[in-house]
Amino acid sequence: MSISEKYFPQEPKAPCIKTTIPGPVSKAKLEELSTVFDTKAAYFITDYYKSLGNYIIDADGNTLLDSYCQISSIALGYNNPELLKTAHSNEMAVALCNRPALACFPSTDYYEILREGLLSVAPKGLNRVCTAHTGSDANEMAYKAAFMFQAYKQRGGKPFTAEELSSVMENKLPGTSDMVILSFKKAFHGRLFGSLSTTRSKAIHKLDIPAFDWPQAPFPSLKYPLEKYEIENKEEEERCLKKLEEIITSYPTKVAAVIVEPVQSEGGDNHASPAFFQGIRNITKKHDVILIIDEVQTGGGGSGKMWLHEHYDIVPDIMTFSKKMQNAGFFFSEEGLAGDQPFRQFNTWCGDPSKALIAKTIIEQIKNENLLKNTTETGDYLYGKIEELSEKYDKLLNLRGKGRGFFIAFDLETPALRNQLVTECKSLGLNIGGCGDQGIRLRPALVFEKKHADILVGILDQAFAKL
Amino acid sequence: MSISEKYFPQEPKAPCIKTTIPGPVSKAKLEELSTVFDTKAAYFITDYYKSLGNYIIDADGNTLLDSYCQISSIALGYNNPELLKTAHSNEMAVALCNRPALACFPSTDYYEILREGLLSVAPKGLNRVCTAHTGSDANEMAYKAAFMFQAYKQRGGKPFTAEELSSVMENKLPGTSDMVILSFKKAFHGRLFGSLSTTRSKAIHKLDIPAFDWPQAPFPSLKYPLEKYEIENKEEEERCLKKLEEIITSYPTKVAAVIVEPVQSEGGDNHASPAFFQGIRNITKKHDVILIIDEVQTGGGGSGKMWLHEHYDIVPDIMTFSKKMQNAGFFFSEEGLAGDQPFRQFNTWCGDPSKALIAKTIIEQIKNENLLKNTTETGDYLYGKIEELSEKYDKLLNLRGKGRGFFIAFDLETPALRNQLVTECKSLGLNIGGCGDQGIRLRPALVFEKKHADILVGILDQAFAKL
Repeated sequence: MSISEKYFPQEPKAPCIKTTIPGPVSKAKLEELSTVFDTKAAYFITDYYKSLGNYIIDADGNTLLDSYCQISSIALGYNNPELLKTAHSNEMAVALCNRPALACFPSTDYYEILREGLLSVAPKGLNRVCTAHTGSDANEMAYKAAFMFQAYKQRGGKPFTAEELSSVMENKLPGTSDMVILSFKKAFHGRLFGSLSTTRSKAIHKLDIPAFDWPQAPFPSLKYPLEKYEIENKEEEERCLKKLEEIITSYPTKVAAVIVEPVQSEGGDNHASPAFFQGIRNITKKHDVILIIDEVQTGGGGSGKMWLHEHYDIVPDIMTFSKKMQNAGFFFSEEGLAGDQPFRQFNTWCGDPSKALIAKTIIEQIKNENLLKNTTETGDYLYGKIEELSEKYDKLLNLRGKGRGFFIAFDLETPALRNQLVTECKSLGLNIGGCGDQGIRLRPALVFEKKHADILVGILDQAFAKL
Repeated sequence: MSISEKYFPQEPKAPCIKTTIPGPVSKAKLEELSTVFDTKAAYFITDYYKSLGNYIIDADGNTLLDSYCQISSIALGYNNPELLKTAHSNEMAVALCNRPALACFPSTDYYEILREGLLSVAPKGLNRVCTAHTGSDANEMAYKAAFMFQAYKQRGGKPFTAEELSSVMENKLPGTSDMVILSFKKAFHGRLFGSLSTTRSKAIHKLDIPAFDWPQAPFPSLKYPLEKYEIENKEEEERCLKKLEEIITSYPTKVAAVIVEPVQSEGGDNHASPAFFQGIRNITKKHDVILIIDEVQTGGGGSGKMWLHEHYDIVPDIMTFSKKMQNAGFFFSEEGLAGDQPFRQFNTWCGDPSKALIAKTIIEQIKNENLLKNTTETGDYLYGKIEELSEKYDKLLNLRGKGRGFFIAFDLETPALRNQLVTECKSLGLNIGGCGDQGIRLRPALVFEKKHADILVGILDQAFAKL
């Protein structure tokens, strides 16, 4: 029995489209909702009671194969029975009704939940965790950890000076910091004020919002197919690494940390080679810069490994997570990255045991059902099928993500064509997501199998034929 | 039957202390937890399975009356049976297992959950809601709303310029913004980069973290008892309002918004009169500045009204919430505050239906059981009893919060004495919280009754006698 048959004996066999999307029920409900809640970005109203496995079902009863999965955040499919079991447990009810201030009054079972859950998949060398609430939040807490750690080291263990203590209350130096976080062009690290300052994906994300004047380094623009452009791509990556080191060494203030996504997701599914990431690790080590790997979108198994950077054989200082884990935070290496004093890295909740329980179940299922193996094998199969399509359709450009599980993407020639493809796919029963200006990214759940891949490819084929 | 008897027939009758706190089990568990999670701020390990009603029970079986309630975030007491019912419901399980990207794929029942829950207690004039994840997050999304709205108005509906679109990718003007958020001295609005820039409570919250150079206005330092210092306090508030207007009108760049807590909580439970807040509203209106009321700690009924600012008869443009609501976000007045285009005010989750369900139940219980009435009456009773104590003990200073439900606070002469009082109370079976440098704040749940108040006052009496 296949994984999806085991989990979802009632899973739909195929998409089924009854109306245009959004249909009349979705439209009416969106209009109602729009009187109180912003719906300008809404595609359709979803029936989460009926959605099952790899299929998302909307308020009009349209059934779509889902390769977008709530912007890459559904790991085990809709209404996974093992997750439902956890949701119905007594542990969950107690966690929901008594949300603790975890740093002050930790619960009797938090250690076990972390140990059996998140910590059991801690990336190599990063054996401590700081739990948070969203991906943006996790990244900003990681930035704070880096700033405080670098300042602590510079201060050499000396106490804060009177000038630091008073100037910081005016948001002035030396109490505040002029250190910076370096990110890469086209990066996406979130939308709060610190994280948005490191986000470089699209203008619309950033316009009119005050930002820190922090530096950015170029991210390689690889040419595809990789086999054909080996030399050019190597040169491009070396150019970017050289520039990175130049910025770090010439920047007027200390670069506290470099943050990088192992695959730039929101910004267009931009890949780089293991050598490029190893280069970043070497440069940051050499210049005493904290390396933060942002696995908010890439983590949780979608690449065929628990964390995508495990494909690169590197050990960062900090790794952030959220989305598919349904629980956010960062893993870290040195105890000092938790802050040298209490109440420095702090907030009311410091995480959420109810989300830690969900994460624990997701992790257990990934292990018990060997979902990374499924992701690797189905990913390879899917890549091969789309490669065939790329030979059939000139409009399918820059296919990428070979050997990276479901982290498969390709481009269209223009943003308009990309948007048209997304719309065609939806009308044919495939929910699919864009990224960057003209990219398509695949982000199915880890229970997506070859039979689903065949349906996806069939719909893509029809949609391309219509372009 | 009283409210606590109805909810919690098995609630302990009195505190019961068996060990020093933290006791041996707490200590062992904290040591274990500290190998993977920061525990420097931890007081004791809490048994949330056994805690009940107004009593928090630790891992050693110590039973403490809880007037701190997870830093003011428990509304209905521990293990409230109505919340447990919601936690065990099918709606909750589906919400937990299928967390949506709410702005893109809203759920069939989100409108009803909002309407019957949060929107049913929307503050006057603010009939729309943007859901978020934490108090800091809610405040930062409110700041973004203010920045985008002010920029939209300045632009007069014109599209973004090419220069704006390119400069913003470099974090430079004119694409980014030099507008500012004004906050008050001693304010606390959170700990992410934007919110921390407006937080002015304690140096330790801010040291070594880059901050925006945004302005602050003085917050009144009232003298107590209020009856005795009526003239001085009025002058003090007028001085602060004058200064506020001066800053707004003379600041080199546009003040997009003013944010203020209706009682400064973390910064020391600093109160001001309704006239002061009405003054802020008048000044912000006059100068086209968005007024954000931060009810993260004050909201949810603890003041005897759903939102503390309702004591002041003002209508802000935005009001943020979190903590006792167990669901974060902001209410707002004008549709334009949601952003003029899709994907500007946006993130993956945009809230959490599981938390919206919890908030809905909390709100229903507040209404059905008349918990605001209990809070008002018990608050008045408690204030009277502590007033008696203040006549007995010279060390109990600046009693404040009359007529504000449980938002009662007082000072000790020094931080050391305050910390000693907190420790004494704990050893006598009362979990109580500090605020500011030498303040004590009361933050019991809304199910705290006169019998609990008597126990609290009895312990305070004993603790003061020991100082």
